[in-house]
Amino acid sequence: MGRPPLGSTKFPAWVDLPVEWNYLDAFGHVNNTHYIRWFESARVAYLQGCELITWMKPDPVGPILASIECHYRRPLYFPDTVRIGARAEEIGRSRMVLYHMVYSLQQREIVADGRSYVVLFDYHRERPTRIPDEDRQRIEQFEATAVSLEEPTA
Amino acid sequence: MGRPPLGSTKFPAWVDLPVEWNYLDAFGHVNNTHYIRWFESARVAYLQGCELITWMKPDPVGPILASIECHYRRPLYFPDTVRIGARAEEIGRSRMVLYHMVYSLQQREIVADGRSYVVLFDYHRERPTRIPDEDRQRIEQFEATAVSLEEPTA
Amino acid sequence: MGRPPLGSTKFPAWVDLPVEWNYLDAFGHVNNTHYIRWFESARVAYLQGCELITWMKPDPVGPILASIECHYRRPLYFPDTVRIGARAEEIGRSRMVLYHMVYSLQQREIVADGRSYVVLFDYHRERPTRIPDEDRQRIEQFEATAVSLEEPTA
Amino acid sequence: MGRPPLGSTKFPAWVDLPVEWNYLDAFGHVNNTHYIRWFESARVAYLQGCELITWMKPDPVGPILASIECHYRRPLYFPDTVRIGARAEEIGRSRMVLYHMVYSLQQREIVADGRSYVVLFDYHRERPTRIPDEDRQRIEQFEATAVSLEEPTA
Repeated sequence: MGRPPLGSTKFPAWVDLPVEWNYLDAFGHVNNTHYIRWFESARVAYLQGCELITWMKPDPVGPILASIECHYRRPLYFPDTVRIGARAEEIGRSRMVLYHMVYSLQQREIVADGRSYVVLFDYHRERPTRIPDEDRQRIEQFEATAVSLEEPTA
Repeated sequence: MGRPPLGSTKFPAWVDLPVEWNYLDAFGHVNNTHYIRWFESARVAYLQGCELITWMKPDPVGPILASIECHYRRPLYFPDTVRIGARAEEIGRSRMVLYHMVYSLQQREIVADGRSYVVLFDYHRERPTRIPDEDRQRIEQFEATAVSLEEPTA
Repeated sequence: MGRPPLGSTKFPAWVDLPVEWNYLDAFGHVNNTHYIRWFESARVAYLQGCELITWMKPDPVGPILASIECHYRRPLYFPDTVRIGARAEEIGRSRMVLYHMVYSLQQREIVADGRSYVVLFDYHRERPTRIPDEDRQRIEQFEATAVSLEEPTA
Repeated sequence: MGRPPLGSTKFPAWVDLPVEWNYLDAFGHVNNTHYIRWFESARVAYLQGCELITWMKPDPVGPILASIECHYRRPLYFPDTVRIGARAEEIGRSRMVLYHMVYSLQQREIVADGRSYVVLFDYHRERPTRIPDEDRQRIEQFEATAVSLEEPTA
């Protein structure tokens, strides 16, 4: 995995989160682990915005995070607020790839991007399960509402 | 990025860390963000074991985490202790790829693996810098000491 | 220490922070440790609002957290946003007691309160140092601007 | 609350936890919030050691953390391992006060102490409930096994 080019800045879901002072580590910038938590908050915002409410708990089906990746582009400092986006980059049989971007409102720059590889899982049968057609439609409709993270109205 | 096959279980550096109760999230298993912190602790154990001491602070050169990836293979529960390994998978001009594995002592299974893409950075010139030959030699010698994470003597 | 009565809801400094999904623990409510981080963010907001800028780093004098206490009044859930206040309850020779309150915007209830016991420390002489008169004046003027956490304009 | 004197170093329950690199904040020492998590891990070790297994989940009765306090005595650095103790300081009708101490194996010094105020709660009736006699006996027997945190055999 090299460092892939940045994707488009248009997202249907995002969340604004303040950088807290103690996110800084001994190097004086925001520690890398916080970005992964931010991706999770953006995923949850996606599921909520998309009304994929059955995905919010593991009963009887629910999402499993299969893989995560993050590319750190610029350091982040305190104080700042980050806007983290999530959009569906790919929808497979039981798998969905969400693309994320972290935009610094202070720097007005994209500071990181990455992907969550999510699998819809049947907790009773203990195996991946097909994403229902109704959910696919919700996802498609939701994706059509995307706006740029950098817009003041986002 | 699909889910790549697991690599070898032999590592020159590792760290044993207990799963704490509050690593569990509302789904009842260890939240995905903790693995990324564990990778960082394994990277630090690698730098220490390898005596790459100039890499421990950003002055005048130091490591930057360029990218991270993690593949979640099995859920983790409390109580448990995880053994997290780090080994150099690739050493480029200014970049080093560290491969990580998370082994559950309770389950006796590999529960996750992933990679850290680290770049040696010159903080004065603000650009990547060549990994010194002396450091390459240390890395090669250190890698020759690898043992399996699953061995009781690890 | 029993559970003391709540103080007034008027604060000169506060910060609004969203509850993130992974703040929930296996009991399904926000884990107790997050409140302590929120107190820290409210302390930093206090130092910034009060322009106690020399307190922001440990050179040559800076604040040390001597003690912390938190009283948990009600459980918190996701989603929610908390407003955390900080005000000076007591200013001694070298010590300042900050009182904190955590207000849930969702529940419209105070969910926790507590105190930070901060000491101004001289890092060269390695001992507590007197809070300068200029800083005392800033604190008094800042305290005069307090408004209720529960007000929509807060 | 001033800074009370340290209690005895004898504890029936304790847990050894490594200081991880990213516990350091921008001041270069372990951030205050980690101690509160360590107290929680020591409480869980107490419940496990004491076999208060019905206290491990909120159904139908379970513990609630009513208040917490922590006194920071000395800064902590990386690398280190901390030993965190828990003992019952007081057992009331429905309330138990646990006293905690954090001992640095590297510094061979007590770096912090504090208390958890725990209430046994009936989640069906939504009110505190009396600690059963059987649990009181377990607690008394467990307390009789206390040894010093500073002993190499701890």
